[in-house]
Amino acid sequence: MEAEKVRQIFRLVSEKQISVEDATEIINNSGFTDLGFAKIDTERNKRTGVPEIIYGEGKTAEQIIGIVEAMLEKQNNILVTRVDSQKAKEVRKSLPQLHYDEVSEMLLWEKNPVAKTIGKIAIVTAGTSDLKIAEEAAVTAEAFGNSVVRIYDVGVAGIHRLFARIDEIRAAQVVIVIAGMEGALASVVGGLVSSPVIAVPTSVGYGTAFNGMAALLTMLNSCATGITVVNIDNGFGAGYSASKINHLAEAAK
Amino acid sequence: MEAEKVRQIFRLVSEKQISVEDATEIINNSGFTDLGFAKIDTERNKRTGVPEIIYGEGKTAEQIIGIVEAMLEKQNNILVTRVDSQKAKEVRKSLPQLHYDEVSEMLLWEKNPVAKTIGKIAIVTAGTSDLKIAEEAAVTAEAFGNSVVRIYDVGVAGIHRLFARIDEIRAAQVVIVIAGMEGALASVVGGLVSSPVIAVPTSVGYGTAFNGMAALLTMLNSCATGITVVNIDNGFGAGYSASKINHLAEAAK
Amino acid sequence: MEAEKVRQIFRLVSEKQISVEDATEIINNSGFTDLGFAKIDTERNKRTGVPEIIYGEGKTAEQIIGIVEAMLEKQNNILVTRVDSQKAKEVRKSLPQLHYDEVSEMLLWEKNPVAKTIGKIAIVTAGTSDLKIAEEAAVTAEAFGNSVVRIYDVGVAGIHRLFARIDEIRAAQVVIVIAGMEGALASVVGGLVSSPVIAVPTSVGYGTAFNGMAALLTMLNSCATGITVVNIDNGFGAGYSASKINHLAEAAK
Amino acid sequence: MEAEKVRQIFRLVSEKQISVEDATEIINNSGFTDLGFAKIDTERNKRTGVPEIIYGEGKTAEQIIGIVEAMLEKQNNILVTRVDSQKAKEVRKSLPQLHYDEVSEMLLWEKNPVAKTIGKIAIVTAGTSDLKIAEEAAVTAEAFGNSVVRIYDVGVAGIHRLFARIDEIRAAQVVIVIAGMEGALASVVGGLVSSPVIAVPTSVGYGTAFNGMAALLTMLNSCATGITVVNIDNGFGAGYSASKINHLAEAAK
Amino acid sequence: MEAEKVRQIFRLVSEKQISVEDATEIINNSGFTDLGFAKIDTERNKRTGVPEIIYGEGKTAEQIIGIVEAMLEKQNNILVTRVDSQKAKEVRKSLPQLHYDEVSEMLLWEKNPVAKTIGKIAIVTAGTSDLKIAEEAAVTAEAFGNSVVRIYDVGVAGIHRLFARIDEIRAAQVVIVIAGMEGALASVVGGLVSSPVIAVPTSVGYGTAFNGMAALLTMLNSCATGITVVNIDNGFGAGYSASKINHLAEAAK
Amino acid sequence: MEAEKVRQIFRLVSEKQISVEDATEIINNSGFTDLGFAKIDTERNKRTGVPEIIYGEGKTAEQIIGIVEAMLEKQNNILVTRVDSQKAKEVRKSLPQLHYDEVSEMLLWEKNPVAKTIGKIAIVTAGTSDLKIAEEAAVTAEAFGNSVVRIYDVGVAGIHRLFARIDEIRAAQVVIVIAGMEGALASVVGGLVSSPVIAVPTSVGYGTAFNGMAALLTMLNSCATGITVVNIDNGFGAGYSASKINHLAEAAK
Amino acid sequence: MEAEKVRQIFRLVSEKQISVEDATEIINNSGFTDLGFAKIDTERNKRTGVPEIIYGEGKTAEQIIGIVEAMLEKQNNILVTRVDSQKAKEVRKSLPQLHYDEVSEMLLWEKNPVAKTIGKIAIVTAGTSDLKIAEEAAVTAEAFGNSVVRIYDVGVAGIHRLFARIDEIRAAQVVIVIAGMEGALASVVGGLVSSPVIAVPTSVGYGTAFNGMAALLTMLNSCATGITVVNIDNGFGAGYSASKINHLAEAAK
Amino acid sequence: MEAEKVRQIFRLVSEKQISVEDATEIINNSGFTDLGFAKIDTERNKRTGVPEIIYGEGKTAEQIIGIVEAMLEKQNNILVTRVDSQKAKEVRKSLPQLHYDEVSEMLLWEKNPVAKTIGKIAIVTAGTSDLKIAEEAAVTAEAFGNSVVRIYDVGVAGIHRLFARIDEIRAAQVVIVIAGMEGALASVVGGLVSSPVIAVPTSVGYGTAFNGMAALLTMLNSCATGITVVNIDNGFGAGYSASKINHLAEAAK
Repeated sequence: MEAEKVRQIFRLVSEKQISVEDATEIINNSGFTDLGFAKIDTERNKRTGVPEIIYGEGKTAEQIIGIVEAMLEKQNNILVTRVDSQKAKEVRKSLPQLHYDEVSEMLLWEKNPVAKTIGKIAIVTAGTSDLKIAEEAAVTAEAFGNSVVRIYDVGVAGIHRLFARIDEIRAAQVVIVIAGMEGALASVVGGLVSSPVIAVPTSVGYGTAFNGMAALLTMLNSCATGITVVNIDNGFGAGYSASKINHLAEAAK
Repeated sequence: MEAEKVRQIFRLVSEKQISVEDATEIINNSGFTDLGFAKIDTERNKRTGVPEIIYGEGKTAEQIIGIVEAMLEKQNNILVTRVDSQKAKEVRKSLPQLHYDEVSEMLLWEKNPVAKTIGKIAIVTAGTSDLKIAEEAAVTAEAFGNSVVRIYDVGVAGIHRLFARIDEIRAAQVVIVIAGMEGALASVVGGLVSSPVIAVPTSVGYGTAFNGMAALLTMLNSCATGITVVNIDNGFGAGYSASKINHLAEAAK
Repeated sequence: MEAEKVRQIFRLVSEKQISVEDATEIINNSGFTDLGFAKIDTERNKRTGVPEIIYGEGKTAEQIIGIVEAMLEKQNNILVTRVDSQKAKEVRKSLPQLHYDEVSEMLLWEKNPVAKTIGKIAIVTAGTSDLKIAEEAAVTAEAFGNSVVRIYDVGVAGIHRLFARIDEIRAAQVVIVIAGMEGALASVVGGLVSSPVIAVPTSVGYGTAFNGMAALLTMLNSCATGITVVNIDNGFGAGYSASKINHLAEAAK
Repeated sequence: MEAEKVRQIFRLVSEKQISVEDATEIINNSGFTDLGFAKIDTERNKRTGVPEIIYGEGKTAEQIIGIVEAMLEKQNNILVTRVDSQKAKEVRKSLPQLHYDEVSEMLLWEKNPVAKTIGKIAIVTAGTSDLKIAEEAAVTAEAFGNSVVRIYDVGVAGIHRLFARIDEIRAAQVVIVIAGMEGALASVVGGLVSSPVIAVPTSVGYGTAFNGMAALLTMLNSCATGITVVNIDNGFGAGYSASKINHLAEAAK
Repeated sequence: MEAEKVRQIFRLVSEKQISVEDATEIINNSGFTDLGFAKIDTERNKRTGVPEIIYGEGKTAEQIIGIVEAMLEKQNNILVTRVDSQKAKEVRKSLPQLHYDEVSEMLLWEKNPVAKTIGKIAIVTAGTSDLKIAEEAAVTAEAFGNSVVRIYDVGVAGIHRLFARIDEIRAAQVVIVIAGMEGALASVVGGLVSSPVIAVPTSVGYGTAFNGMAALLTMLNSCATGITVVNIDNGFGAGYSASKINHLAEAAK
Repeated sequence: MEAEKVRQIFRLVSEKQISVEDATEIINNSGFTDLGFAKIDTERNKRTGVPEIIYGEGKTAEQIIGIVEAMLEKQNNILVTRVDSQKAKEVRKSLPQLHYDEVSEMLLWEKNPVAKTIGKIAIVTAGTSDLKIAEEAAVTAEAFGNSVVRIYDVGVAGIHRLFARIDEIRAAQVVIVIAGMEGALASVVGGLVSSPVIAVPTSVGYGTAFNGMAALLTMLNSCATGITVVNIDNGFGAGYSASKINHLAEAAK
Repeated sequence: MEAEKVRQIFRLVSEKQISVEDATEIINNSGFTDLGFAKIDTERNKRTGVPEIIYGEGKTAEQIIGIVEAMLEKQNNILVTRVDSQKAKEVRKSLPQLHYDEVSEMLLWEKNPVAKTIGKIAIVTAGTSDLKIAEEAAVTAEAFGNSVVRIYDVGVAGIHRLFARIDEIRAAQVVIVIAGMEGALASVVGGLVSSPVIAVPTSVGYGTAFNGMAALLTMLNSCATGITVVNIDNGFGAGYSASKINHLAEAAK
Repeated sequence: MEAEKVRQIFRLVSEKQISVEDATEIINNSGFTDLGFAKIDTERNKRTGVPEIIYGEGKTAEQIIGIVEAMLEKQNNILVTRVDSQKAKEVRKSLPQLHYDEVSEMLLWEKNPVAKTIGKIAIVTAGTSDLKIAEEAAVTAEAFGNSVVRIYDVGVAGIHRLFARIDEIRAAQVVIVIAGMEGALASVVGGLVSSPVIAVPTSVGYGTAFNGMAALLTMLNSCATGITVVNIDNGFGAGYSASKINHLAEAAK
């Protein structure tokens, strides 16, 4: 395919339809983008409404405004992660069209509504303290066009709460398990479902929870098979990866 | 659905078709299996040839033989991971029908040949030292009925090697990236493909590689999106999770 | 026993005393609770006045109020851990009947007074800086109906202070040892008493105390036998476990 | 009581029944033993058959033989932990009366048979690789006169195995949960039983299992209440602490 | 000597000069203090003016005032470490006679002036940022009656600064070396002097300085012999240990 | 050369041009500076305008003012690193001639303009959050007389951005790569250029980024050759080392 | 330049001197090598005799032989690092022309003798135990055509040994400092020389040396400026980076 | 003093008694040795019989023989640390006059018998497994002319063993406390004695003992004052530092 693309440029040169200089510029000046690594994605995004993502942490309100404005020219949907309420307020002064989700601390603009999948992503949390990260995953997954089912506060300390909703979890195409403290929920869910499981350790806990390290190690060492893991508190990453998998599966329906 | 199953047992009791004692036994003695957590899987496995897995490390040859023999009665396919050549030799004295894969250090018995998927799992490694883990992932994926494409030794120190085969990688449904030392290959591949990426850190390296910890941290913190991670040297886990995703996608073809 | 319970339901179905639908609902809709994992506890709690526990950290005042109000309908005693004074103030605006213990930072409501055990739990601390954690353990133990004896500030730097009160410590059914810095008190007490010892490392100290890690390692590696350990600063957990042991012993009196 | 003991010595001196020199020697030469810290235990041990314990690791066969021979003069029962089979063989050349338990790697001599408790200690393991540590706990508990029920290989990857035996676990006075890898079993069991739970992390696993660190952190941070923890692979310590608790409870029967 | 003391009590009993009850009380009620572990120290302190020490961190102003007032009744000198300026202000409202040293953050009251040693303690720092810790060591040493020579800001980046003052350092009885960042100064000084060296790592630095861990490791692994180490930022501990050594040496003059 | 210098002093003594006392003082009082370790540098600095550096962190505004004023007497150029804007404001009240660079948080005074090199130092960053550290490196390098080319925000998540500017990077004499999170950019650049690469891990990221530790390990373990590393966030150190290398190369032009 | 190269291909196509297919193949099949990332290097190597490097660790003798034979066809010089003597013996059975350096554990074949630089790389070690790593750096640097001066066993415990040879060190273009234990030598040398310093921590030491971690942290946090660091025991990396810098400087002579 | 030495050389030059060239050589060629940093020590050693020390680990038998032979020419006493029995055997083939101490794994040659101090160094260990390190400290201290009292196996698990010998410990000038596992003995001893205490963590233990890290942290964070610490298993360092202190004190007798 790539070969085909380059071949066409050569044909155009050979047929004198474009100059040697222009052809050279296409190959060189635009870097490797012309060879297809990123451009195609961009174009698909424009067609489908899949959002552009901005990592908000460590950026000033001014920087975020600048990047969003540049993006909006291309008419993309927008998702800004990790924006605290104060910074969100400042950004929304200049860009009132952005919606701020208080729980997940994300800024969103859905210019081109995205159709939702039939298959579902189940988002399962151990406790109520994992809410922020869970919503970061949920809002991300929804922004990328996924149907999401939220099953919160079903940690293993009262495992009957989990079993009461196990059918919903098992019906999902992909399961995201979010847990802090010891993170054992990932192993239990992993042993009960046959769909792929993405585990998110959270920094909930104290002492030897080591800001999520205990949960991370639990998840990486799970005796249940079929679990993969993302960074501590990385709800966005889990939602994004789950979306990729869910869309692969969706094509089958 | 589960409710339906229990309802049927009650109907049978109500209609005196089975005794109270038998019904009680079905619910209780078999634990929750009857409620569907594991049994269905087992039956599906029998039909489809998907293998049972034994974690070989820390088990004696005798223990492995015992477990395999018990499993064989149920006519399942078998996959034993992490068996060194000496232990494999001992096991094969009793069970010569098992095949030993020298590179991945796995014992296999494919009694019911599994059909291969059309969609592919790409397994990409940074160096030749990652071979054992890569083959553990590859052989696992193949045993679970996946088509696998191996793209080895394309680490970022010579990034042109990676670009030379990028089309094959991008064509896969799922990509497994395996790297030790600094593990940067996962980020680079993650930035170039749109399919889900599972990263496997390996214990290749010395000094501050900390037996795979450096690669693990790299992969968990990847600036590329859509990457999930498994334990250090967990080729099996990556192959198994990739298989789950690939089969979700396969239904679409 | 469980088998007996299920058998009774089957008998009722068989005798047409309850409908198939109702029986199914009992088994299924209520999850596994009906099979006794949690419900029995709840009922026992109601009878005995043993409190329900809420982990207050990471929950808003509103969330705590909501949970407490839901619990109060069931007439349970209440224990909310890790509530700072500001949050406690907010909660008590809506729920003035809750008592706030300033030192242990707990909210309590003892609706059904709990009888105290004859046997005692001794709570021993190394320094005055461990007071908050010690009181968290003490108040927890008392809320669960235990007699508590407080022996504070007897760290090994002046070991004669410990020996002066060793008889009281040795008279207890269970001993909780609470220490920060190097946590050596646990080993010394462990070598002097014959009752079970629960050690609580605290985050008191600086530099290589690593927020309680030094004390934790000391306690896990104690050369004295009969010591078990809980998380850093987990006074509640120690009080709760000690209560379980003390009540086992109490039945003997 | 201690005061009483000292008072008696003074009375004897006052009544000239023992000399000043002899009394001085009793108080001083024997250190604080005479004041009761250890002697009473020793005597109780002799009466009850409770064994003396020797930590075998890091001691030569010669050293073990010497210590055992010294102890045997006092007619105590003997328990030597962490003796590999080679060293055990050497010790048994000189002390053939010692029994060697191959699985737990302990040397035992039960000269005075110990009566077993009515109440039970349940020992629950996640996998077969935890066997050595589990047996160290079990043999220790039995040597100290406890009835033990072994429930092995019921890890959370197949949680139905655990539920199939939950009644036996719940019937025990004390529960020891032994697990490597991610150690999630402790949290699940902790959420299902009301008796005290002692968790033992094992060094089973690889990569980020960090030789038991992952399981340890899981157990310390368990969201289930009533769990205390011992050092990695410390089966002996768990068995010993469980014995202390079980004997407290036993008095009640 | 101890034996002698007990013998005297027995003699007094034997001679009916004190009652059996009184003798018993002396041995028991006062714990082991009467056996001389702490009391003698206390008395020596009173005679010599050596101060009592209070660890101020984690104590409220009220607690410090209470402890100081109790101590003052015994007419001891006082040293309170780690008191920030705000807390010091509060304490001095009640106890204006206490002097507050702004740099070392210590409260002092020298009621009985202590004579200074002839031999000196040299306190050597790598940079000006180590000043607070250095002064904590210096003020402590002086409070305990030592002559101190301060040699600050002679880190190895400009090693000539150190050599310019090496004679003063070599003339001291004990040398305290205080350094953050990489802490190399301890090794260099350790290689140049023949007196005992106490090294204090400080939390000065950033990134991989890990709040003093880098300096601590440097000092523990020094290739120079004769160096011992205290906790990170433990200027007090270094000053106190140096004082002990210096007074041993002083007796020789 | 050094020998020559000392020989001259001896000659002066031998010729009675300076007194024995004066000669002794030159050798001794000034430490080893006279033997050339630092003085020559100072003199060269004066001639060339290369700045004196002050590490601003952990120093008060008053201390910085004092040190700068002492230096200004010698007419040196000045560079103060790690000065936050508040402290900078205070310093500039007394020393208004100092320029404050907001991004790199440095105070500068270039009294003797430094000529810039022909050869360039390329400073390459992964993201916009690395800006502060990048500018610390850039401003340092410029202050020491280097031509700098800034290539920011070319992280591997979108590797085509890097390739678009690879020619500029390859043209530089030295390359500084600055990256947080997983730091993979260093490996990719290291594999594409033949000039020496200095890698700077930054504390950008969260969770397992461990404040720069993940990036540091990546860089230390890079599979690309020719990369050396400095401390986390040490932009100054990278700029300074790069300057040393660039000046070595410059002599060749 | 790159643009020029692509332009030429277009010209050839435009002039029909090569076919569209051939041109396409040149651009695509060979990946980006044709665009100059690696090929030019390879060609330069052939001309200059600069060796190809093979990382020998984790490769079998057979794999090394295979890679070397493939390389020899291109007539390159060869350097194989980290080959233990047993493996070297096996390799040399097939490739007797390779020379094995016992100390650095490297295999070498210098087919095209490389001219040595005038400027020198000084390799300075703290102790004799650092010898292996030092020789790995030295042999690497020499293989790449550098003049090397070895200054071994001059650690700071006896700093006069270092000063005795400081002139030689200061005369070098680049200095490599190699030290284990606390690694303080890097800071001392860094404060005495004006050339770039590359520090190599070694795994020499025990206890808290943590296999080189203590030395690594020392070097990363050095208070001396102008020091960059490589991985623990990475003598090769230091030699290679030093060579790059030295050749930059060499052009100036 | 140093100034005096240099002044003399100048006088000799001034008086033409030595040539300018010779004077220059004295100052320069011999580095700083001539300025007295090491030479005086060497001479003192010769007079007093204080031994030269060789760190044996990581050195071959040949290297040790070479160094010892060089030293013997100067007629020094010799101490070689960390020599396993196999290596000792090889060394003693060439140097049969060396005595090998099996327990401490040291090679010794006392050519000039050293007088022993009146004051004592007490060496106190927690268990019998600490024996090797304790003897390394003891033999070192004795080789440097100290009287040593060994008090072994008095760990806090049976604290009465410690009290039985506390008088001997308190009578010593310096106390070395050696303990593995949790290392609590250091704190207990530190609280009971008034002499300086040097604590040595040992690598005895398992699991979270982390090869001595647990004991190290305990000792660094000791709530008892007057304790300084050396590296894990560094018996030599403790013996050496204790000797320095004891000799300071000895001068007083």
